[in-house]
Amino acid sequence: MKKIINPNKADWPKILERPVRAFDDIEELVKNVFSDIDRNGDLSVKKYTALYDQVDIDEFLVDDDTIVQASSQISEELKNAIKLAKENIEKFHRNQITETVKTETTGGVVCWQVKKPVEKIGLYIPGGTAPLFSSVLMLAIPAKIAGCSEIILCTPPDKKGNINPAILYTAELCDVTKIAKIGGVQAIGAMTFGTESIPKVDKIFGPGNQFVTVAKQIATKYGVAIDMPAGPSELLVVADQNSNAAFIASDLLSQAEHGTDSQVVLVSTSKTMLNEVEKEVKKQLEVLERKEIAKKSIFNSKLIYVESEEKAVDMINTYAPEHFIIASENELFFIENIKNAGSVFIGQYTPESAGDYASGTNHTLPTNGYAKAYSGVNLDSFLKSITFQRISAEGLKNIGNAIEVMAEAEGLQAHKNAVSIRLNSLKDV
Amino acid sequence: MKKIINPNKADWPKILERPVRAFDDIEELVKNVFSDIDRNGDLSVKKYTALYDQVDIDEFLVDDDTIVQASSQISEELKNAIKLAKENIEKFHRNQITETVKTETTGGVVCWQVKKPVEKIGLYIPGGTAPLFSSVLMLAIPAKIAGCSEIILCTPPDKKGNINPAILYTAELCDVTKIAKIGGVQAIGAMTFGTESIPKVDKIFGPGNQFVTVAKQIATKYGVAIDMPAGPSELLVVADQNSNAAFIASDLLSQAEHGTDSQVVLVSTSKTMLNEVEKEVKKQLEVLERKEIAKKSIFNSKLIYVESEEKAVDMINTYAPEHFIIASENELFFIENIKNAGSVFIGQYTPESAGDYASGTNHTLPTNGYAKAYSGVNLDSFLKSITFQRISAEGLKNIGNAIEVMAEAEGLQAHKNAVSIRLNSLKDV
Repeated sequence: MKKIINPNKADWPKILERPVRAFDDIEELVKNVFSDIDRNGDLSVKKYTALYDQVDIDEFLVDDDTIVQASSQISEELKNAIKLAKENIEKFHRNQITETVKTETTGGVVCWQVKKPVEKIGLYIPGGTAPLFSSVLMLAIPAKIAGCSEIILCTPPDKKGNINPAILYTAELCDVTKIAKIGGVQAIGAMTFGTESIPKVDKIFGPGNQFVTVAKQIATKYGVAIDMPAGPSELLVVADQNSNAAFIASDLLSQAEHGTDSQVVLVSTSKTMLNEVEKEVKKQLEVLERKEIAKKSIFNSKLIYVESEEKAVDMINTYAPEHFIIASENELFFIENIKNAGSVFIGQYTPESAGDYASGTNHTLPTNGYAKAYSGVNLDSFLKSITFQRISAEGLKNIGNAIEVMAEAEGLQAHKNAVSIRLNSLKDV
Repeated sequence: MKKIINPNKADWPKILERPVRAFDDIEELVKNVFSDIDRNGDLSVKKYTALYDQVDIDEFLVDDDTIVQASSQISEELKNAIKLAKENIEKFHRNQITETVKTETTGGVVCWQVKKPVEKIGLYIPGGTAPLFSSVLMLAIPAKIAGCSEIILCTPPDKKGNINPAILYTAELCDVTKIAKIGGVQAIGAMTFGTESIPKVDKIFGPGNQFVTVAKQIATKYGVAIDMPAGPSELLVVADQNSNAAFIASDLLSQAEHGTDSQVVLVSTSKTMLNEVEKEVKKQLEVLERKEIAKKSIFNSKLIYVESEEKAVDMINTYAPEHFIIASENELFFIENIKNAGSVFIGQYTPESAGDYASGTNHTLPTNGYAKAYSGVNLDSFLKSITFQRISAEGLKNIGNAIEVMAEAEGLQAHKNAVSIRLNSLKDV
């Protein structure tokens, strides 16, 4: 771990820099796969599945029998845990529903905004060593509350052409419409253009490796929206002299095990605490299953001493962490002054992994400093706002002249005419 | 105008197709300008301003004297119109403020979401023949309500190096922090990387030509968020046999005058109405100042007869118009069944130009079918949601086991440990 004592503000951006990721070489590959899928549909999805996942798939959509069987393939204990998590995530996201407010901006001019679901959405769930059924919960639950009419889930098949039963069980529990055994760039391509078996969607959600990330970015060129740009996972903890070093070390390691490019930062007003956490990290690291991964990201992690909590929060806002744990006693100060973060965990019994699974908040969050401008996935990610306005004859009399004057000044005479022709008709009455 | 009678649903996408716009050639140019600005800052902004705007600018930021003088250069009538519009836009956007709701998802587990402003935002206002001060209102007003701390406005200088006083006046009225005489790709580049005189921003808003559109898209690769992808403006009107043909024609023309690629569609359950509107359009077109532009887009416009209002709304949802005027008597049916649209104008005294200027709704709206997944600009566009959670010892006892089981099943042992170490410490108590 790199220890940094009292750095100058001018050096913060350098110290807190994320690893640069250049994707230009991947773009070409993605564009080729996309244009192939656009022209040849399922046939080319089949081809890329054979190439990248090394398995021949004839029928991409998982059939009902397989989904039903999945339930018997996982333990009751896991099913109950998933149900508890589902309940909490549902409660939190359901409380994000907002009411429509009608505003009479001027007499006779009434405006309002209605949120409607994005109709067709695609969820991408990565494959690999860990079956990320928790991401299914995080995406399908708010989609269902929003009222999306079609929820397509794509996830790569294993070498035998199967999908992990925990993913199938969770998808079924959350009312996903269709589950497809398609991974990587070809999954994003299929949902972008639509194929014989996969519908074209309006918006694509979900995590993925760099290929999926680039594919999602390129999908936006074809009119498909995405949840947010993705990057390696991050955690920043702020601690004082009385924090629990063992708890903090466990949180830093839980982030570090995600991948070798995960970012882990501890900011503290106590040098002793930095040293204690460093010791604890070394101790806990030894017994981890994913020790080799965690070791690499911990090696790049930063332990930063700052003189004051004011400096700490200023630095944290500059970094804009995806996950931010407040392990300092002065909780309220940080709650009030944090401006840029994805999700905030307050107090010593709130580990980051609680938000990953079961507290109720969403774990799809802005990384890479995107928290300065992006929200994490929430109910609104599955909705869009449509504005409405109704103007009475009286209302048009009240604001019509202002519109005429402004349209004239912008050189848009037809805009003015649309008002004048109506105001003239009212003069006759 | 192209008249289409009762088309098959299978043909709708073809009939409602937007003009294809290929931008690959522009991308290269934008990338070069960006990399130049990234390396050379103001110096290269100056170079591109001389090249594209044909004017030498030494000081990009407009000084206070010039801003104060602007107020005396525009009429009281226009100032009053702008003030009226400002008041309505403010009222409507202020009513979009939502309260934070705390949810106890499980005993001892409290989650909530807080909206915080995007701190630094950039507004792009195009130059050209029309000074689009109305776009300043639409972007700066909600930014101010949201609490953005820095609002940078970039707009191209004219050949004399000046900015239209109506834009300066409106920017000052709306508390814009800095106004810069920079246009096009170089403006987006300057706000993406930051230069000696222009700060790097977190999110860029505003309309523009195809160069600006591509530049905004590429800015997202450098971690800057944008309001939404842009395309030519569109209007769809639905009418029945009793609609006012002259009013509808005036609305179609107000959209058509925007540019030769503007999209104008009339859907009606009455063939007579289609014919009447066609006649009215011809008549009104003759006296327009921007006749040549409007003529071209009207030539490509569609008059579509459908048998029923069910079919009409189905087709409209397939198209997802930026602007949707309900000129049919059966208003409620369309209000309830519209799923995809940017902004909706109800009744015969609600011309689309009301929403462009003064009703209070925002005129920055999703074009090109993006209304299926994107909202128009609203207060939330200037905010991001941060989630918070606080778990008590009791709360962790309630959900801790579920987290452990799920983390284990996903193969993430360190995630499990972060809970176990805390639960163990509670056993000792």
